[in-house]
Amino acid sequence: MFRFERAVRFSEVDMARVVFFPNFAAYCHEALEALFAALPGGYAALVREADVGIPTVHFEVDFKAPLAYGDTAWIDVVVERLGRSSVGLRYTFRRAGQEPICAIARHTIVTASMSEFTTVPVPAHLRALLDQHRD
Amino acid sequence: MFRFERAVRFSEVDMARVVFFPNFAAYCHEALEALFAALPGGYAALVREADVGIPTVHFEVDFKAPLAYGDTAWIDVVVERLGRSSVGLRYTFRRAGQEPICAIARHTIVTASMSEFTTVPVPAHLRALLDQHRD
Amino acid sequence: MFRFERAVRFSEVDMARVVFFPNFAAYCHEALEALFAALPGGYAALVREADVGIPTVHFEVDFKAPLAYGDTAWIDVVVERLGRSSVGLRYTFRRAGQEPICAIARHTIVTASMSEFTTVPVPAHLRALLDQHRD
Amino acid sequence: MFRFERAVRFSEVDMARVVFFPNFAAYCHEALEALFAALPGGYAALVREADVGIPTVHFEVDFKAPLAYGDTAWIDVVVERLGRSSVGLRYTFRRAGQEPICAIARHTIVTASMSEFTTVPVPAHLRALLDQHRD
Repeated sequence: MFRFERAVRFSEVDMARVVFFPNFAAYCHEALEALFAALPGGYAALVREADVGIPTVHFEVDFKAPLAYGDTAWIDVVVERLGRSSVGLRYTFRRAGQEPICAIARHTIVTASMSEFTTVPVPAHLRALLDQHRD
Repeated sequence: MFRFERAVRFSEVDMARVVFFPNFAAYCHEALEALFAALPGGYAALVREADVGIPTVHFEVDFKAPLAYGDTAWIDVVVERLGRSSVGLRYTFRRAGQEPICAIARHTIVTASMSEFTTVPVPAHLRALLDQHRD
Repeated sequence: MFRFERAVRFSEVDMARVVFFPNFAAYCHEALEALFAALPGGYAALVREADVGIPTVHFEVDFKAPLAYGDTAWIDVVVERLGRSSVGLRYTFRRAGQEPICAIARHTIVTASMSEFTTVPVPAHLRALLDQHRD
Repeated sequence: MFRFERAVRFSEVDMARVVFFPNFAAYCHEALEALFAALPGGYAALVREADVGIPTVHFEVDFKAPLAYGDTAWIDVVVERLGRSSVGLRYTFRRAGQEPICAIARHTIVTASMSEFTTVPVPAHLRALLDQHRD
């Protein structure tokens, strides 16, 4: 499990004064970028040097309770499936230090050539990293 | 069916030069705001005068093909379910004038009091509008 | 003068329930993309086919009155300066149909090679377009 | 001087693969939120408990060099002016550990009642904090 901590920002709430729901998907991507920071050069090196990106093929999220301005979110990431070129992730959102779940997201990404948009096997160093965060 | 047409903007692509996937959720919300524009005062009046918001309880999206800068998206919205205070929507993304589907999203919203965050019945004028866009 | 009309969206207000100030800069870019739509293929063709981008070298904005959710902005764009590779723009923000100014922005862009990040002369068709919107 | 360190995210670059210029303004606001974190309850408490917000009256930025994906920005904030209800800030953007300046922004905010949108004196604890970061 990888925990990403993230304070809600002033601009991320909407007219209802809770986090605009598409921002939960953006937070998930941020959590991944933080997780991938353990790779040499992080996700940026994967993209720019290894030409590997991670297009999303499926994303879904269930909302239980809102996040508000002043909240800090804990986003716990686990790897549910680790295939040849496909990775299933689950993200659990809570307010820092609290039990109730705010949201649960499931996300399927594939590893793909950035220049050719075809799937490629999950690179070995990324696979090793993801393996550490299995469900 | 309600068609929302939307050009991809320069800032909405990411490092992979395709629309950043959370922006599809934001486009869905924009499509709803456009659909709700048929109400007197639009969604803003619903929120500010009737104190009714539409929190998301579930959102999911499957991606088939990317949208790039220079593309204009057609986002076709249909109402799949229309309950007492819950609405199920489906959005189909295509490039304008083209057949292949780029993405399909499913979205469950509830009508809720903005000030109390409790569900309320779908207001009659919104129900009548949604009824026009049944699957 | 080129008028760009833009409804404020639900997500574009911040915790203060007025448009988050950086979004005014984003609205300016949108106004430019709308202005450039008069070119064949729009701004996208400029970028992707002619390899010409418009990096910002200076941007400033003075705020007089906020824009809120439910407002539609009129953003009036004029070209203040049109140099060899540099363009000075001014944007005046008002609520649609109203006199008071919400904000005035000034923006200096240069035309540049997207692949080499060096300035290039303003392409002739873009120069002709900008010339139509002189102060 | 207050240093805010911020990695560029995958979604924050635009079609030109450099940070979309309005995001520099958003980064400035983030830097302020980080600076204000030294107050009890941070900026959120200021807004929600003391009913004080900080509307922007002027913002300007000069760009010298782009920030790209993979870059981490150092954003150095200093207080240039500290009036009764008006604060002048300057932000200097560099790549972490490097000398050349990417951008310099100047920002005038006022302290205002969030509920009434009228200026109020800079609260004492905020004044003391800002005083520590004078130019």
